[in-house]
Amino acid sequence: MWTLLGVVAGALTSSGYLPQIVKGFRTKRMDDVSVLMPGILGVGMLLWLAYGIHKEDVPIILANIAGSTFAFTIVAQKYCYRCCKDPAD
Amino acid sequence: MWTLLGVVAGALTSSGYLPQIVKGFRTKRMDDVSVLMPGILGVGMLLWLAYGIHKEDVPIILANIAGSTFAFTIVAQKYCYRCCKDPAD
Repeated sequence: MWTLLGVVAGALTSSGYLPQIVKGFRTKRMDDVSVLMPGILGVGMLLWLAYGIHKEDVPIILANIAGSTFAFTIVAQKYCYRCCKDPAD
Repeated sequence: MWTLLGVVAGALTSSGYLPQIVKGFRTKRMDDVSVLMPGILGVGMLLWLAYGIHKEDVPIILANIAGSTFAFTIVAQKYCYRCCKDPAD
């Protein structure tokens, strides 16, 4: 029961980044998104991953593998859309 | 040592929202930010909070109290700046 709660919590705190990834992909605009947010969250999730491995806590491990991957995807999108933007805009 | 790692991880995954809060406060623009992202992450962190309380894991509890508070702050900012925007913009 508690492991299931952890898995649902982990599914939310990792999939929560997807709407931002999809929105960024559609609009190719992320000017209002602070790059520090997904950057700091991504590094933090890597540390949670180490913590989860030490505690042998599967929900923590899975959530932070997925979450950090998505967070760094947002960082990459932010830089890509800034660099690729038409300078005439 | 591992508790310290958890505290540092928690400090990052909660304070990571602050740059977005500050950026939003300064620019009063959050058009490119998906409201679903902080919304889903905030709900997920409330579930992690319950999980942490069950596991009596202090780093998880502290990180998710702070993190969910900041995430819901971003949701509130998003709605506030949209409603308060000058319609002539």
